[in-house]
Amino acid sequence: MIPNAVRKYLESHRAEHLEKLFELLRIPSISNRDDGECERAAKWVKAYLEDIGLEAEVAETGGRPSVLGRFRVGDDAPTVLIYGHYDVQPPEPLELWDSPPFEPAVRDGWIIARGADDDKGQLFTHLAALEAYQRTAGAPPVNVKVFIEGEEEIGSPNLEAFVSAHREELSADAAVISDSAFFADGIPSITYALRGLAYVELTVRGPERDIHSGVHGGAVANPANALAKMVAQMHDTDGRVTIPGFYDDVLPLDPAERDAWEALPFDESAYAADLKLDALGGGEAGYSVLERLWARPTLDCNGIVGGYTAPGAKTIIPAQASAKISMRLVADQRPERIVEGFRRFVAERTPPGVTADVRVAAEARPVVLATDSPAMTAGKDACAEAFGREPAFIRCGASVPVTELIQRVLHMDAVLLGFGLPSDRPHSPNERFRLDHFHRGALAAAAFLQNMA
Amino acid sequence: MIPNAVRKYLESHRAEHLEKLFELLRIPSISNRDDGECERAAKWVKAYLEDIGLEAEVAETGGRPSVLGRFRVGDDAPTVLIYGHYDVQPPEPLELWDSPPFEPAVRDGWIIARGADDDKGQLFTHLAALEAYQRTAGAPPVNVKVFIEGEEEIGSPNLEAFVSAHREELSADAAVISDSAFFADGIPSITYALRGLAYVELTVRGPERDIHSGVHGGAVANPANALAKMVAQMHDTDGRVTIPGFYDDVLPLDPAERDAWEALPFDESAYAADLKLDALGGGEAGYSVLERLWARPTLDCNGIVGGYTAPGAKTIIPAQASAKISMRLVADQRPERIVEGFRRFVAERTPPGVTADVRVAAEARPVVLATDSPAMTAGKDACAEAFGREPAFIRCGASVPVTELIQRVLHMDAVLLGFGLPSDRPHSPNERFRLDHFHRGALAAAAFLQNMA
Repeated sequence: MIPNAVRKYLESHRAEHLEKLFELLRIPSISNRDDGECERAAKWVKAYLEDIGLEAEVAETGGRPSVLGRFRVGDDAPTVLIYGHYDVQPPEPLELWDSPPFEPAVRDGWIIARGADDDKGQLFTHLAALEAYQRTAGAPPVNVKVFIEGEEEIGSPNLEAFVSAHREELSADAAVISDSAFFADGIPSITYALRGLAYVELTVRGPERDIHSGVHGGAVANPANALAKMVAQMHDTDGRVTIPGFYDDVLPLDPAERDAWEALPFDESAYAADLKLDALGGGEAGYSVLERLWARPTLDCNGIVGGYTAPGAKTIIPAQASAKISMRLVADQRPERIVEGFRRFVAERTPPGVTADVRVAAEARPVVLATDSPAMTAGKDACAEAFGREPAFIRCGASVPVTELIQRVLHMDAVLLGFGLPSDRPHSPNERFRLDHFHRGALAAAAFLQNMA
Repeated sequence: MIPNAVRKYLESHRAEHLEKLFELLRIPSISNRDDGECERAAKWVKAYLEDIGLEAEVAETGGRPSVLGRFRVGDDAPTVLIYGHYDVQPPEPLELWDSPPFEPAVRDGWIIARGADDDKGQLFTHLAALEAYQRTAGAPPVNVKVFIEGEEEIGSPNLEAFVSAHREELSADAAVISDSAFFADGIPSITYALRGLAYVELTVRGPERDIHSGVHGGAVANPANALAKMVAQMHDTDGRVTIPGFYDDVLPLDPAERDAWEALPFDESAYAADLKLDALGGGEAGYSVLERLWARPTLDCNGIVGGYTAPGAKTIIPAQASAKISMRLVADQRPERIVEGFRRFVAERTPPGVTADVRVAAEARPVVLATDSPAMTAGKDACAEAFGREPAFIRCGASVPVTELIQRVLHMDAVLLGFGLPSDRPHSPNERFRLDHFHRGALAAAAFLQNMA
């Protein structure tokens, strides 16, 4: 149960917390851009942690910096690690935003900005809860460590090395991560499994320059056609991924889990309608939508480009074409094995007249968390107290690389206490976060600390 | 034979003609851009024609304007129509040019600029020849009509309507077109057949916005993957195009022509090496390279784009992806029938969860010219006189839409007297035109008029 003073503090400081969050949302901390904005966001987080009475530092990672914070109440108290990430996805295409992505606004009860949900809005709920304890009781009810990362949106390339090198500073009894979502509006949820990731860029090269497709068409292999063919061959007619060995390590779904998922109120046509689709059309034949999203690995082309792409006609055989391909992985797939299979696939399918090159952009392992740990119980009760309803236990198709490292490298329990909604549009234009979830999320974050005490 | 005075005039005015050509090359008259530069180039051509004593006008076409010129010597003289185009391809990618595309330069005996070969350099040879006749004899040896187009590089969308509406102004005994190339360095050539063109843009649309590929991957059909699959399916494993009815109207190659082509000094590995390729790899199995280039239709992806294409990783299912597809056609294929087949192909292969849309960008019919017309003989002799060697009769895989219209709509003979070289890089960065060919081309243009007289 949240102490009364803490609850009151949070309720009476809603405007201030929203204004603070806006400050953070205004920093365009896009981790795939090397423009100093991530460093600015890291400094902002550090300053805020210090402002509410924590010790804090900006820690180098080899890439975008992390922020570490701590507050010690005593040896007898358990220790909680709070994780979040201050970096965001690129906002493009900009023309689809109704308001500028880095000028946060509240409209119709929604906070609108890049990062509103993923993850600045969610991570801030924990900072607000910490502030409430500091300003009312002078201390949180447990020892607290804070770890705010800056490379989550680019697949956390330096995270494993960083976590391994900072085992001591990060070790705790459990970790809480708010970077996930409700199953549906009105159904608070705890996520207990995430997919992993293998993200590669495939480039196909042909003639040394773009050449006239009339003069040379029919003789010279076309890199754009060759790339299209390779990408097309990555799925068979049943939607199965054809990368060699792709399914070798996939664990079958436990029938009990399948039953639990079937009991969830999932409406396929509503899901499609929300995306303005007549039909879904993705994934493997023979599996339900939730199984395809949560328990089956996938392969998606995230971007493709080659040749002439401006308006009008230009008749060339392009010198090169490339595709960004991400594969979402499930237990017990290993990204490095998948990438190895991908390289083999490309080598075997590169036709005469072109060369192909594979570059790895990001890797993360899948993770499944135990649902009966003390942290899970504390999270479940916190969720119920803040949102008025027992949470559902769900999986998520996305990746939060730190989760698996907390389990494998730090040997800690973790709970994914997510306050987003499926309609929040993370990674998309007009990303948003329900204002009510922002405030209730802070209550849940406070309750979690109390329940852990 | 070129009159002595004309030859001397051309030889003593080389610097002036080069400087004049540079003026035209400096105008970035890219026909797929609506920025007024084509209009500027048209005015430049008109002014030059007037300067050398022709009547001239800029004629509206509904798109980029054409320039029409004329000089009448008398009812007894035959009439020659000179065709060229002042418009050029876009210069991108700019970073691959060794010098700015619209700042012409001469290096190592080559004129370097966008349009140097295609077609400003070649069309100017005829203007120089006309100037030489005007300044020496006061008139050319035949009635001359000049037709300089501004939409050749975008497939001449308004040309058929324009030619049909200006039958009278354009009618002549024969047309000469210099917008082609030698078979090889040292082998002057007359091109007697060109491929046609059907150029379409295929757009595949999925969710209303880019969406998170972790959260939704496996459920939602991916437009980039769907597009890749469609493009891949446009060829079978033998490199044959699978568009319904694609080969229905293709005429088989005359064995005599095949024999003549086999006698041409074609070196496949030198051709590949010039493009820095280890192997060619394009086109249909079972045909020689020259057959594939000259007598077989093809399908090439000229550009493809969708989703996230900036550096780094972004995990999205793109809202849409599109490809520019051009098909080169041979006699007796009809672009409108090919487009109809393409639309059918797309409709039949559009998977659930996406929609697909086909937009036609350009169409041109293939053409084969008689090689025994008086114009061909005049062209052959002119070529031999200017370049010191009897020309080879060749085909070309590219399209010059006017050629077919001259035959079908104006019922005239035509000769394609080309002064380019296969290594001139038309449509590519560092396009060039051999300075010696520029000057000899003017001699050939002058000789052609004389031979027609």
